[in-house]
Amino acid sequence: MTQSRYDHLQNLMTESQLDMLVLNPGPTLTYLTGLQFHLFERPTLLWIKAGKPSALILPELEVGKAKTSLIPLELFPFSDDPSTWQSVFQQAADYIHPGDHTIGMETNRLRMLEYQYLQQAAPHARVVPATEILTLLRAQKDEEEIANIRRAVKIAEQAFLAFIKNIRPGMTERQVSAELSIELMRAGSDGKMPFEPIIGSGPNSADPHAFPTDRKIATGDLVVVDWGASYKGYCSDLTRGLILPPAPDVFYQIHEIVVQANQAGRAASNPGVACCVPNQAAHEFIQQKGYGEYFTHRVGHGIGMEEHEPPYLNAGNTGLLLPGMAFTIEPGIYLPGQGGIRIEDDVVITQQSAETLSTLSRDLYVIE
Amino acid sequence: MTQSRYDHLQNLMTESQLDMLVLNPGPTLTYLTGLQFHLFERPTLLWIKAGKPSALILPELEVGKAKTSLIPLELFPFSDDPSTWQSVFQQAADYIHPGDHTIGMETNRLRMLEYQYLQQAAPHARVVPATEILTLLRAQKDEEEIANIRRAVKIAEQAFLAFIKNIRPGMTERQVSAELSIELMRAGSDGKMPFEPIIGSGPNSADPHAFPTDRKIATGDLVVVDWGASYKGYCSDLTRGLILPPAPDVFYQIHEIVVQANQAGRAASNPGVACCVPNQAAHEFIQQKGYGEYFTHRVGHGIGMEEHEPPYLNAGNTGLLLPGMAFTIEPGIYLPGQGGIRIEDDVVITQQSAETLSTLSRDLYVIE
Repeated sequence: MTQSRYDHLQNLMTESQLDMLVLNPGPTLTYLTGLQFHLFERPTLLWIKAGKPSALILPELEVGKAKTSLIPLELFPFSDDPSTWQSVFQQAADYIHPGDHTIGMETNRLRMLEYQYLQQAAPHARVVPATEILTLLRAQKDEEEIANIRRAVKIAEQAFLAFIKNIRPGMTERQVSAELSIELMRAGSDGKMPFEPIIGSGPNSADPHAFPTDRKIATGDLVVVDWGASYKGYCSDLTRGLILPPAPDVFYQIHEIVVQANQAGRAASNPGVACCVPNQAAHEFIQQKGYGEYFTHRVGHGIGMEEHEPPYLNAGNTGLLLPGMAFTIEPGIYLPGQGGIRIEDDVVITQQSAETLSTLSRDLYVIE
Repeated sequence: MTQSRYDHLQNLMTESQLDMLVLNPGPTLTYLTGLQFHLFERPTLLWIKAGKPSALILPELEVGKAKTSLIPLELFPFSDDPSTWQSVFQQAADYIHPGDHTIGMETNRLRMLEYQYLQQAAPHARVVPATEILTLLRAQKDEEEIANIRRAVKIAEQAFLAFIKNIRPGMTERQVSAELSIELMRAGSDGKMPFEPIIGSGPNSADPHAFPTDRKIATGDLVVVDWGASYKGYCSDLTRGLILPPAPDVFYQIHEIVVQANQAGRAASNPGVACCVPNQAAHEFIQQKGYGEYFTHRVGHGIGMEEHEPPYLNAGNTGLLLPGMAFTIEPGIYLPGQGGIRIEDDVVITQQSAETLSTLSRDLYVIE
């Protein structure tokens, strides 16, 4: 399995004439090696070059862990004294011989910390984004990966149904979020959840990326609940709405529109279709209903080892949806100062069409 | 409060002749602005220059959030179409006028993603690490920050005491970790915990940065429990040991040595003392007991808004411990293939000496 992932990577690198690749702690490194490292202030770096074991520059205290790697490694351990770190990068460079060749990297993972050590150790190499390769590497999930995502969806749904029974008016957003976290753990989520459940109540529900506050949920509120579970390192990501009646009619109206836009986005998700198409379908639907300016984001993003990863379903993305790709469909309408609603499901592209993994009712959940 | 943080930053920038500073989502951005953003694939960036409102380059869907900023901002929002992002960075550069001046950045936060957009928008500016300034900015905590850390320690201790009652032989490391997460949430931790509790049992306890596995804890095991709570965004970080008797005598012996090394490290922590001194005290103690080669890491790290932050208590760090600095003291002995133990406490430097915030017994907790 993992050997074939590494072979896949080598093929992609050859095709795009990329000589080397560097990865710091994150999902791609774990995908290839099976190893997990914390991303802290220490510059852990995997340096891949065809034809030889990959160099792994890592803290001494992590050396034991590296022995379980699924690909051959040459270890370059460093101590806790940062003044020695550059020399360890230099040792790795002496082993790799980067010369003036090209080094690919993950732009949204590699930090200036690792980059600066790398640049000094390989001053003539060209460090370039390897975004396209890395998108292709992990975007089409295999059966085991899909099974993990499917399980992460089920855990999230089970947790939500247990959670919803315990929610009462007067609880703060933070308390509501903590309740959901507890139920996620009880339902079998990995301890490292993809993200802290977003609870946006009342006017806060109009902020698509709200963080839970001490605001108490109250009669008249629309409440956005955006949460996910993690299973064997794979994520789910769902959103549903709560309502505390009596609430304004407009909340019910925008909810109904968003449910239909969600349906339109999912229906437009098919193999061979461009990523921008489901986005357009949902946006056009909401536009027609007169709320276009209140749907301020793309319709979805890929899910897998990351809660946000390619493919991104935004305007302008002409990349194709392919079998094994998993992503969210999550249109929303946000009325500033009043409230908002988003309905989010997880979809996987199959050989013939697409399957919606999440089956939880999209109706508003009434809290009394 | 926050205005004085901003003034403090401006003074530090002036002293070190730094003209500008860029921050992407993370604790320093939150410390200055009160704003929180998720760090995902979108290049959110705060660009600070003296004498004018700071530029905030951010996703359109986050604009509502920016209105609560504690410092004046000029907003440069971008849509979900990445092909437009460079032009938004250019608009911000036209506003800031970076010229050929110096831009400071956080090396362990800023990603190549933001750096590449920035570099293209400000091609003549010099982007340099601002590590020293940023260390000084947040290292000495004020009373409110210390109170938050103190509360995070109490929550962690309370959670541990509830958790320990439910741990039985035969539970997997993952189950044990999930139990502790649930108790942390119940005890009042923020939903976003500083890290997933580390449960290293049996031979896994010899890995200082173990991730929980499906291994079942069993008779004869030494188990390392490394966990923390978060309160109002401030972290605690503690480690204690469990034992499942009958267990080898050597486990009790190394535990006793580590408890004393922890005491030595804390006793050596005083205002005006170099950061390397407590590290040396603990290392020398363990060395004298004959286990020097099995203590493979520095004695501690700062805690605050991050679970790892300056000051780092490692060999070679001659920076001084100053009042308000908070950090861990966490010596360990790791016997590969057998087991290991670490005892970690949280310490804050006061005007006259140091206070250990964690009061939980350092004895081994017996699981039967």
